[in-house]
Amino acid sequence: MKILVINPNISESVSTLIQAEAQRSASTGTEIAIATAPFGVAYIETRFEALVGAYASACVAAERHGTYDGVVIAAFGDPGLQGIKELIDVPVVGLTESSLVTAAMLGQRFSIVAISSRIKAWYRETVERSHLASRLASIRALDEPLRDIGSVQQDYAGRLKALCNEVVEVDGADVIIIAGAPLAGLAREIRNELPVPVVDGVSSAITQLEGLIRLSPGKATQGSFAQPPVKPNRGLPESLERLMCRSQAE
Amino acid sequence: MKILVINPNISESVSTLIQAEAQRSASTGTEIAIATAPFGVAYIETRFEALVGAYASACVAAERHGTYDGVVIAAFGDPGLQGIKELIDVPVVGLTESSLVTAAMLGQRFSIVAISSRIKAWYRETVERSHLASRLASIRALDEPLRDIGSVQQDYAGRLKALCNEVVEVDGADVIIIAGAPLAGLAREIRNELPVPVVDGVSSAITQLEGLIRLSPGKATQGSFAQPPVKPNRGLPESLERLMCRSQAE
Amino acid sequence: MKILVINPNISESVSTLIQAEAQRSASTGTEIAIATAPFGVAYIETRFEALVGAYASACVAAERHGTYDGVVIAAFGDPGLQGIKELIDVPVVGLTESSLVTAAMLGQRFSIVAISSRIKAWYRETVERSHLASRLASIRALDEPLRDIGSVQQDYAGRLKALCNEVVEVDGADVIIIAGAPLAGLAREIRNELPVPVVDGVSSAITQLEGLIRLSPGKATQGSFAQPPVKPNRGLPESLERLMCRSQAE
Amino acid sequence: MKILVINPNISESVSTLIQAEAQRSASTGTEIAIATAPFGVAYIETRFEALVGAYASACVAAERHGTYDGVVIAAFGDPGLQGIKELIDVPVVGLTESSLVTAAMLGQRFSIVAISSRIKAWYRETVERSHLASRLASIRALDEPLRDIGSVQQDYAGRLKALCNEVVEVDGADVIIIAGAPLAGLAREIRNELPVPVVDGVSSAITQLEGLIRLSPGKATQGSFAQPPVKPNRGLPESLERLMCRSQAE
Amino acid sequence: MKILVINPNISESVSTLIQAEAQRSASTGTEIAIATAPFGVAYIETRFEALVGAYASACVAAERHGTYDGVVIAAFGDPGLQGIKELIDVPVVGLTESSLVTAAMLGQRFSIVAISSRIKAWYRETVERSHLASRLASIRALDEPLRDIGSVQQDYAGRLKALCNEVVEVDGADVIIIAGAPLAGLAREIRNELPVPVVDGVSSAITQLEGLIRLSPGKATQGSFAQPPVKPNRGLPESLERLMCRSQAE
Amino acid sequence: MKILVINPNISESVSTLIQAEAQRSASTGTEIAIATAPFGVAYIETRFEALVGAYASACVAAERHGTYDGVVIAAFGDPGLQGIKELIDVPVVGLTESSLVTAAMLGQRFSIVAISSRIKAWYRETVERSHLASRLASIRALDEPLRDIGSVQQDYAGRLKALCNEVVEVDGADVIIIAGAPLAGLAREIRNELPVPVVDGVSSAITQLEGLIRLSPGKATQGSFAQPPVKPNRGLPESLERLMCRSQAE
Repeated sequence: MKILVINPNISESVSTLIQAEAQRSASTGTEIAIATAPFGVAYIETRFEALVGAYASACVAAERHGTYDGVVIAAFGDPGLQGIKELIDVPVVGLTESSLVTAAMLGQRFSIVAISSRIKAWYRETVERSHLASRLASIRALDEPLRDIGSVQQDYAGRLKALCNEVVEVDGADVIIIAGAPLAGLAREIRNELPVPVVDGVSSAITQLEGLIRLSPGKATQGSFAQPPVKPNRGLPESLERLMCRSQAE
Repeated sequence: MKILVINPNISESVSTLIQAEAQRSASTGTEIAIATAPFGVAYIETRFEALVGAYASACVAAERHGTYDGVVIAAFGDPGLQGIKELIDVPVVGLTESSLVTAAMLGQRFSIVAISSRIKAWYRETVERSHLASRLASIRALDEPLRDIGSVQQDYAGRLKALCNEVVEVDGADVIIIAGAPLAGLAREIRNELPVPVVDGVSSAITQLEGLIRLSPGKATQGSFAQPPVKPNRGLPESLERLMCRSQAE
Repeated sequence: MKILVINPNISESVSTLIQAEAQRSASTGTEIAIATAPFGVAYIETRFEALVGAYASACVAAERHGTYDGVVIAAFGDPGLQGIKELIDVPVVGLTESSLVTAAMLGQRFSIVAISSRIKAWYRETVERSHLASRLASIRALDEPLRDIGSVQQDYAGRLKALCNEVVEVDGADVIIIAGAPLAGLAREIRNELPVPVVDGVSSAITQLEGLIRLSPGKATQGSFAQPPVKPNRGLPESLERLMCRSQAE
Repeated sequence: MKILVINPNISESVSTLIQAEAQRSASTGTEIAIATAPFGVAYIETRFEALVGAYASACVAAERHGTYDGVVIAAFGDPGLQGIKELIDVPVVGLTESSLVTAAMLGQRFSIVAISSRIKAWYRETVERSHLASRLASIRALDEPLRDIGSVQQDYAGRLKALCNEVVEVDGADVIIIAGAPLAGLAREIRNELPVPVVDGVSSAITQLEGLIRLSPGKATQGSFAQPPVKPNRGLPESLERLMCRSQAE
Repeated sequence: MKILVINPNISESVSTLIQAEAQRSASTGTEIAIATAPFGVAYIETRFEALVGAYASACVAAERHGTYDGVVIAAFGDPGLQGIKELIDVPVVGLTESSLVTAAMLGQRFSIVAISSRIKAWYRETVERSHLASRLASIRALDEPLRDIGSVQQDYAGRLKALCNEVVEVDGADVIIIAGAPLAGLAREIRNELPVPVVDGVSSAITQLEGLIRLSPGKATQGSFAQPPVKPNRGLPESLERLMCRSQAE
Repeated sequence: MKILVINPNISESVSTLIQAEAQRSASTGTEIAIATAPFGVAYIETRFEALVGAYASACVAAERHGTYDGVVIAAFGDPGLQGIKELIDVPVVGLTESSLVTAAMLGQRFSIVAISSRIKAWYRETVERSHLASRLASIRALDEPLRDIGSVQQDYAGRLKALCNEVVEVDGADVIIIAGAPLAGLAREIRNELPVPVVDGVSSAITQLEGLIRLSPGKATQGSFAQPPVKPNRGLPESLERLMCRSQAE
């Protein structure tokens, strides 16, 4: 089983974190390939940055098409996820989506711990898109400017753990979701010190994607997740254009 | 990895169907044990029957405690699921819950195809408890009295497939959930003939449970899914009583 | 008019409190019979304990069938209520349900004052099942371990009254619901000292049940509250089994 | 116990229907007084007509203040209900409100059967104000122009009963609410011929109001249902003005 | 283009504030006429006062019918708005409605800053009627009794600005709505000192109404905003009666 | 006042339709500039196509930055709208957003009439993002493959008008939204033949945008619609990169 993990951001240091946690989570026999967005920003905190990351991720997914059995969009907030699911004929999951469904099986209400205040609105809207916002107990975030996106875990270890405790004790969360690719792996390290189950985006995504690939439920040929209808287009990367024109033709 | 699958109904023929699909879905190295409810009804269609199945399932889970790494409550409608999650210190999943989260990754709106009209209210309320009712396109069901709960798939093959097509074409479902343990395995057989991904309760549950066990997110020691507080009790099966008194003591 | 009040818990001291408030609330000519669950726990705070109380209550309702014109399930959280309504051919009400509908006529937003922190999740989910959660201003609870379930009112009188004032002044409640059978009668005693209407579970339930019996709207013979279909069953208490097999036959 | 029933419409023939059903529903010892709006329209179908009926009802409630222990606003749609609750120091209920809470105890989903198509929007918005719209299975209505508002029950008996059956069989209602004062009493007559419990506005209102008066939960002195603050006013009927200036002064 | 602005309150000093801001907001060529309610209270804070203001506004709108191309109901809370829309054949807008739709284009979540604590419940329910309550971050209000409704802006300038900052910093509002006719114009004065866009009721209403008049989408002749059906009525002001009897006749 | 209208699709014929209706709707003194997406598809029907259109629109908005006082994203579905609002320091509106808020002032429930079945899911999700889905009566669409995106109005005139009538008579819409840039201007032509107000995306957007520009509520400097934080980026069009690095620096 071959999984392509797309980092929608341009930060190689974050790709390294993602890859490490992806490898640790993968089953024997799963091959993980990581791809960093060729254009975009260092990390996504806003709707606009997500818009850029969405297009970059779609380009990468198209470019690599044929080399994987499933795709992970590896930024919390799932830039472009629903659109890319239409385009691609194998399962595609996002960090938020897979964290939410994993958390939904571990408790009734969950909270998200995140890396910046600015990121909260985008995360909340991502949860709303899944229709699970009424099970969201809270989103709490670091409120200082980040020193270095590649070392957030180390730089703010104490504060992040304190936020985890607050969402349980103050906000009533049954489950903690530690959000954002830069925090990949932190859940694994501190889960024994926390009073409720902790969910990590990357390991949830790998596990959920492996499950979907094994279940092989098939690609829609009708409905809103079938491939977009073939139609005139212009100015798109060649790999994307090829995929869009294939469509039902195949 | 050892998984206990509890059939909350008394029908051995349904247990056989469940076990077969569970075995087919399990990863190499997963051991499946099936247990049929010692008391209750032939199949659950109503809130009252679910109330009985909930208690029966809890008794079975307690009786077998220590012999498994995770539990599947194998009736759509998930009788007793949230309560049993509090009691048990390893992951517990239900057919509805795992179908819903699987479907949620394969599309935005899903429909449920079920075995009887009467069962629809109970299913709808189960979906409401997950807060995903606004993504439910429809529930459609067979409307004739069932001849034999063990052979529903064979007896109504054509009608069930027709219902699957209706939920896509008329109700706009992106994903079909074929619901109910008596239909275990049907999705696997007809998925190539259907225009959208099809989700089966038993295989989703086994796959999701294996994933949770591998992620090992830990048992809550605080919050609403911690074990119930130790307190006076009376008249309970001995295995249940032992589990309830263990609680935080452990 | 004969009313059976079922205490889903095993605490006789709580049954005594319930009975006293039920008698005080009942109209002339109403006979109150109280029954304590033959098995279960001292008081219900969690989903699991509610699951046990639900089955115990159903067994009591079946055992006493034919001796009453209506039933009160006398634990806040309404264990088994919707299922028992299917089974029984006369009106059945719960403390939460009748408190909520009573409060709904006295104001737009209401708060619940409860006996323990752990109980809050179960109560919130009970309110969600009624679809009235968007009118719930808050749930506030005692946060110390209870000394004695039979004397909570006396032991924490000051703190309970303070919580009542907080839900009005801080949370904006128009109505206070004092929740839980162990607090039966407290509303009556302190209502003159509180700035908004106060609702008590037991007296609401008796009053609502008397009203339903007088309105005699009839038992459903179709739809999701008709009696469950007759079907094979096994291992159930004889009175329950008899009731389940009667069904539409009558 | 003295109950004032206000017909917010000017139709004496409807007041007669209301009074008859109110008397039939009242407990021994309850005195019913009926008052017909001194200004307004023959029957309320729209938001604008409800606005007029609201003011008319408030004027009547003020005019008769001191002569009653509780008030029924006797038009489905509850014109002015929440405002009049602020003004008056004893319980006030409406036909919709009391029908909804009664239906909520008899099943999970209910439908409304009404006298005209135009009236459906106003009814739906009234249900939305109670936050129970997600439990509303449907609203079905007569679609011909009414011959005579005082004889709707006789003129359309067959069609009304057919609508009742449709909401159960097609829309899945657990409970039928027969709506509108002109239909007062119809539920009582046909309930034995219908497959689910039937709720009537007038009898529900009388029964719920009697219950509230007996529970005597008290008038709010804080919060949004306390009397409006005393402030300058002009041009109001004298009885209304007197009531508004009394306020916390009392 | 002629616009009638109706102050549903009797305060001439507030009418003066409204008129000044309306004139400042109007396009060249728009004529503004202001009308003060002939009966009612000094300012509306509650559901009951809104009920009175609704009827007073309807009477004014009918009295002046034929002299305007559109109407503004100039109290936040929009007393009678939906009903008056049915009655009148040109566009009618309210301060809350136009503030909410304007805010909805400037951000995802908005907060309301208001003049009194008591007014919050009525405002919240008005937002609920628009179905936008899930985008409401908060309502914050002055909590002291007002000295003079005509000079609230001057008397509490500092506190009002502090509330504006709190809704952004604490509650996460993307947009601030400064609510209530007595605060008309305040947004214009302080907007440069605030960190997010600020919306004012009167200027939003004038701007939205001018837009609707230019778009001239037409008056409904079917559906729930068509004129109420002609039917018997009694005791209404002559101008109102004339309008109600015109109806589809025209 | 200068308005930039961006067609997120590559179809010049649709740009021509948009421009004509934009000119007809604009006030005297408003200058309209139209820009067609330099890359993308002929018309957007799916989430994936919207993802491409979002990035294309952002690039155009950045390229032309400094030449306009406001921007219209002229595809129903509003590709990239919320992200572009963060980036740009003047008001930005979309066709769906402005249609919805306009319709919200003309009635309580609205329906959308659209050009293809496939487009319905994307539209519904766009309405959900505005939190107004509970006021959406229905979406109805042409169900044949389009002959030519530039002549849809002519080719399907009769069918489109029939759909408009169906949403009123069958679905209960108070307002009709004729959706999609290819239908720009149709509302204007047929509104006199329809029984309820009709809203057109392009004219609503121009009118709403002119209103926002006149109200000049200011650009957020805090909260989730402030400009994204300046941070490392790579591979972006130069105009976009310049805008992203300006940010709070200005």
